[in-house]
Amino acid sequence: METSRKINFCPICGGCTKHEIPDGEEKERAICTICGKITYENPKMVVGCLIEHDNKILLCKRNIQPSYGLWTLPAGYMEIGESATEGAIRETWEEAGAKVKVISPFAQLDIPLIGQTYLIFLAKMMTPHFSPGPESSECKLFALDDIPYESLSFSSMLITLKLYLEDIKVGKPKFHYLLINKRYYNLSC
Amino acid sequence: METSRKINFCPICGGCTKHEIPDGEEKERAICTICGKITYENPKMVVGCLIEHDNKILLCKRNIQPSYGLWTLPAGYMEIGESATEGAIRETWEEAGAKVKVISPFAQLDIPLIGQTYLIFLAKMMTPHFSPGPESSECKLFALDDIPYESLSFSSMLITLKLYLEDIKVGKPKFHYLLINKRYYNLSC
Repeated sequence: METSRKINFCPICGGCTKHEIPDGEEKERAICTICGKITYENPKMVVGCLIEHDNKILLCKRNIQPSYGLWTLPAGYMEIGESATEGAIRETWEEAGAKVKVISPFAQLDIPLIGQTYLIFLAKMMTPHFSPGPESSECKLFALDDIPYESLSFSSMLITLKLYLEDIKVGKPKFHYLLINKRYYNLSC
Repeated sequence: METSRKINFCPICGGCTKHEIPDGEEKERAICTICGKITYENPKMVVGCLIEHDNKILLCKRNIQPSYGLWTLPAGYMEIGESATEGAIRETWEEAGAKVKVISPFAQLDIPLIGQTYLIFLAKMMTPHFSPGPESSECKLFALDDIPYESLSFSSMLITLKLYLEDIKVGKPKFHYLLINKRYYNLSC
């Protein structure tokens, strides 16, 4: 996968980049022709919460693209300066207006084809209040039998919820690590 | 933490950036004054392997800075286009010349102050062979009682190995999620 083509200029000095394999490396990188700095691109972490409340799960209806109008767990990109749990708590506050406490890591889902890694935590609401933030049109608690699988926003969320339901059926939730290869992904998995 | 100051130019069009809080966001970002693109910076994932072999652990002596001459688990930045396990296997091959099979995720360690998240997997060698790659001066199997705690390269590695030893003492390794706040970190933790 060639990803460095879009880095045309050095973000530090503004010099044009060349796209070559640096000495001692194996992948093509964007190298500044003026200052020599290599601009690396790495996968991004998406952090979020699976919030359990009275045997229900809190979902948000997306008010933004992509997947406008579909349901999701509150989640978003982890920021520099925060931990994964802090990011998951922040995203939940921003998207669902809910103050949550993280219980444990539940699922890590790598999606190499889009350079993303999802890390979803089990969480509880500190108070039983929530209200949609700007990125959500609605937030709602769903009983496990009522989760809208046909209207979920991302494969990562579908898989996370299916894993959770499977765990609940046979015992208690445990940590899962999965690889999502979108080329081969289908709804029956 | 202000991190966007170092992005002076847009990597796409080369325009100068301004550092402001975009509409609908809460953090200052580098925004291109020409094309308007926001360049986000996110934490990087470091992936690696804790390789068990005959009740010993494989460590590499660093042949590069930082921490030249100190011991580490084979680990490095996850690349776009690979999963965390693929990255951990690749780094182990590059640094230790060992072909490994990942067994399970063992520890995730967030280090917000440096914008890094470590994900270390338990792994086994596919064949009992290893040899140092360019970034290592030496690779060696250490019995658990002989791990050189005073000469380890990074706090993340020290913590990972201590967690592993604690798990082994009381049972078998399980998944750990931890936050490392370097301001308060000391060797006794």
